[in-house]
Amino acid sequence: MFEIAQLSEKISKADYKAQLPELRYQLLQAQNRLRQARVPMLIIIEGLDNASRGEMVNLLNEWLDARGLNVIAFGEKTDEELQRPRFWRYWRELPPAGTIGIMAGSWYTGNLIGRVMGEVDRHAFDHHLRRISNLERMLALDGTLILKIWLHTSEKAQAKRFKALSKEHLRWGVSRLDKKLHKRYDKALLAAERAIRLTDTALAPWHIINNDAPRARNLRIARLILSAIESRTEMQDNTPSLPVVEIPPTRQRSVLETVDLSQSLERDEYKRRLSALQARLTDLSWEAYHRKISTVCVFEGWDAAGKGGAIRRLLHAIDARISRVIQIAAPTDEEKAHHYLWRFWRHLPRAGRTIIYDRSWYGRVLVERVEGFARPDEWRRAYFEINDFEEQLVEDGIVLAKFWLHIDPDEQLRRFKAREETPYKRYKITDEDWRNREKWPEYELAVNEMVERTSTEFAPWHLIPANDKPFARVKVVETVVKALEKALS
Amino acid sequence: MFEIAQLSEKISKADYKAQLPELRYQLLQAQNRLRQARVPMLIIIEGLDNASRGEMVNLLNEWLDARGLNVIAFGEKTDEELQRPRFWRYWRELPPAGTIGIMAGSWYTGNLIGRVMGEVDRHAFDHHLRRISNLERMLALDGTLILKIWLHTSEKAQAKRFKALSKEHLRWGVSRLDKKLHKRYDKALLAAERAIRLTDTALAPWHIINNDAPRARNLRIARLILSAIESRTEMQDNTPSLPVVEIPPTRQRSVLETVDLSQSLERDEYKRRLSALQARLTDLSWEAYHRKISTVCVFEGWDAAGKGGAIRRLLHAIDARISRVIQIAAPTDEEKAHHYLWRFWRHLPRAGRTIIYDRSWYGRVLVERVEGFARPDEWRRAYFEINDFEEQLVEDGIVLAKFWLHIDPDEQLRRFKAREETPYKRYKITDEDWRNREKWPEYELAVNEMVERTSTEFAPWHLIPANDKPFARVKVVETVVKALEKALS
Repeated sequence: MFEIAQLSEKISKADYKAQLPELRYQLLQAQNRLRQARVPMLIIIEGLDNASRGEMVNLLNEWLDARGLNVIAFGEKTDEELQRPRFWRYWRELPPAGTIGIMAGSWYTGNLIGRVMGEVDRHAFDHHLRRISNLERMLALDGTLILKIWLHTSEKAQAKRFKALSKEHLRWGVSRLDKKLHKRYDKALLAAERAIRLTDTALAPWHIINNDAPRARNLRIARLILSAIESRTEMQDNTPSLPVVEIPPTRQRSVLETVDLSQSLERDEYKRRLSALQARLTDLSWEAYHRKISTVCVFEGWDAAGKGGAIRRLLHAIDARISRVIQIAAPTDEEKAHHYLWRFWRHLPRAGRTIIYDRSWYGRVLVERVEGFARPDEWRRAYFEINDFEEQLVEDGIVLAKFWLHIDPDEQLRRFKAREETPYKRYKITDEDWRNREKWPEYELAVNEMVERTSTEFAPWHLIPANDKPFARVKVVETVVKALEKALS
Repeated sequence: MFEIAQLSEKISKADYKAQLPELRYQLLQAQNRLRQARVPMLIIIEGLDNASRGEMVNLLNEWLDARGLNVIAFGEKTDEELQRPRFWRYWRELPPAGTIGIMAGSWYTGNLIGRVMGEVDRHAFDHHLRRISNLERMLALDGTLILKIWLHTSEKAQAKRFKALSKEHLRWGVSRLDKKLHKRYDKALLAAERAIRLTDTALAPWHIINNDAPRARNLRIARLILSAIESRTEMQDNTPSLPVVEIPPTRQRSVLETVDLSQSLERDEYKRRLSALQARLTDLSWEAYHRKISTVCVFEGWDAAGKGGAIRRLLHAIDARISRVIQIAAPTDEEKAHHYLWRFWRHLPRAGRTIIYDRSWYGRVLVERVEGFARPDEWRRAYFEINDFEEQLVEDGIVLAKFWLHIDPDEQLRRFKAREETPYKRYKITDEDWRNREKWPEYELAVNEMVERTSTEFAPWHLIPANDKPFARVKVVETVVKALEKALS
């Protein structure tokens, strides 16, 4: 795999100087086209030689326009990063639409180093590569232009380089890790080959570049970036669509029909049980905090099903310093410039905290599906993406509880009318609520398919009967209490 | 994940009888449209209840037109199948364009059973699922309409069914395996959930169907097939294209330049070395035969590079009863009706045999790329597909040797002219050869990228200097000898 990259391809200083100015001019123009087309571009610079990666990134930083350019270096994990799932640090740095993000080191680096040093076994190595492949496919299909560059340094050139850099004032250029990797050069190359092969897809291909001749390398990378931007901006669609066969749902019984909406609680029993559960939840949430176990609660449900009320009952029990509610309304400009999951990744709790999402990533397969904001291939592949996302949360030890608050159409109508009639509740009811109500059957289909495809062993849906608010609230608090008890036991 | 499927959805006999005729009529019409559109369709019927799978398949067989319909049942592996890589038995049964293949049991079955019975560990389970996902994506992007149906039987219904079937004359309906799986119902369901989740992609989604109410099940499956065919035949493109950013190759040195074409062998030394190597190869090939280790040789190279001559030198040493040459010319009608890898899968050797491909699957990234027979997204993703294919061969213990026979343009010209001047060689040279010659630079780029992306640790390319035929022939035989020695040691 590295045969081609090993071919020496030297370019004289004079040639280099003659070619560079025009290339740099073209690069700036291309960057501008990318900005206008609002295409996000991710350039990943990988390779076993850390110093060269840095060198290359510095060069690109110099050549490109600083506006809309982000160089992303990943060093030791910060406190913040250590307290969240593995990919969190990468998600937060993904380039928004129209900008270029350059990663020197990436989601590949730690896995590769770990494998070479014998700290990551073959299965964990492959598992992480599959995660990477899922992520890259997802970003590419969402419109991100991904360019992955592998800088290949020959063993000889690397040894020579280390020697040159060993002079006192240059010593920063070679780390102890570099030397360790160098000693395992053959093993490192094998690991690199496997990583490249398993992630060299049509949507996010690798480009292996000879690192031994820096001038030739620089020109090739500049041309690669140029070509990639040109091809991409010439494509008509910004978000290319996957050719998905759309099968209209056949009429079937809905899982929501199985929810027994007649269940209710007397006022006294409600008060008694709720306050007992809340007391328990307070204790558990503090214990989780001290043991650094985070909690994510997801609330979905019909309009007026009582999500707000249920959430307030949770908040009443969990100290505000260790909990937070994220209201998911229309995305901000910044959020719109990213993949739809980005806004949820960014808010993931630090270790020990509780985050409550009032509406969530399931908007993709609910409102976006029903209203046609997402194309069929987009919401269809969201099931896989969401399962993959939630699996990452659970693997990281996060307690995940997903609620669908269910009421029937009559109850909704009663609540809508009551809201209209109560002055201080009037703000809660809008024309959109009435419009959504008309699409009840479409939403019911979407909810049904959502439960079918995303209710997993590690993240089951809890369908909460919510015609009776007290019953629903107690049920929600009780479910969170049980989930925490299980996680802490 | 199975919540929805568990909803009972009974349909009366009368209703069923009323609805069925029209549905069956529509199914036949849909099948006809599929035939006209030349779309291959693969229906996979899976589930833990073996008898129901069979029942469903029999029903579909009755409903659909037998022309262009194939029911594929996989039982115990045959001798033939045991001697080839795991997926061989599935490849040979894939439906050609315009036909429907129904698999009762599939690439999922063995893996699932193995996992439930504790014979397949978690990593092997996932590894196989990844393979399946790669295969299904590849087929779907090639135009196959894939419908995956999971028949979900509740534990209670299954127990009831077993009881009913235990009567003497029905006992064939329940196997010992069925009972073993039933005892591990919860574990089986978990394994099924994981298998479904990791392979529930937008291109090949699962449909989970309640198996407890047979009439409702039958109607739903009929409607599902109908909808799938209707949606698919309404799509404009038969082979939907993946949105790939095409980066034109930048000029660079070619790996072929590194081949030292000046190497040659004197006639005497050639004869001496060749016959020694051939004698060794004879021994090794018989030893491989007895030890059931197969060999696959792949020959690619410029026109007139001497592929035929080199192949004859191998055949001279390997007994004709255990070797075979597959000439890859234009595909047959039957081959054209399948994925491009199908014709190579079908010819894989039985254990211990040697198969020599005179041209190969690399046509996809060479002639098909250069001549525009494959779209950029098609040949681009072929690298990944080919690596995945070759990894399966190597994992199965097959010895794989890939040769590119290299000559320079001058030598080719000399040979072309010599062929034209020698009456008995004239048939070997065609207008097409001259046309190909004009495209030397395009082919050089394609060869370069082919070597870069498919020369792997487990299946490296051997670039053979072939300006001197004796040198090339010895080098080829020697390489095969070395590969066999390594595999047999």
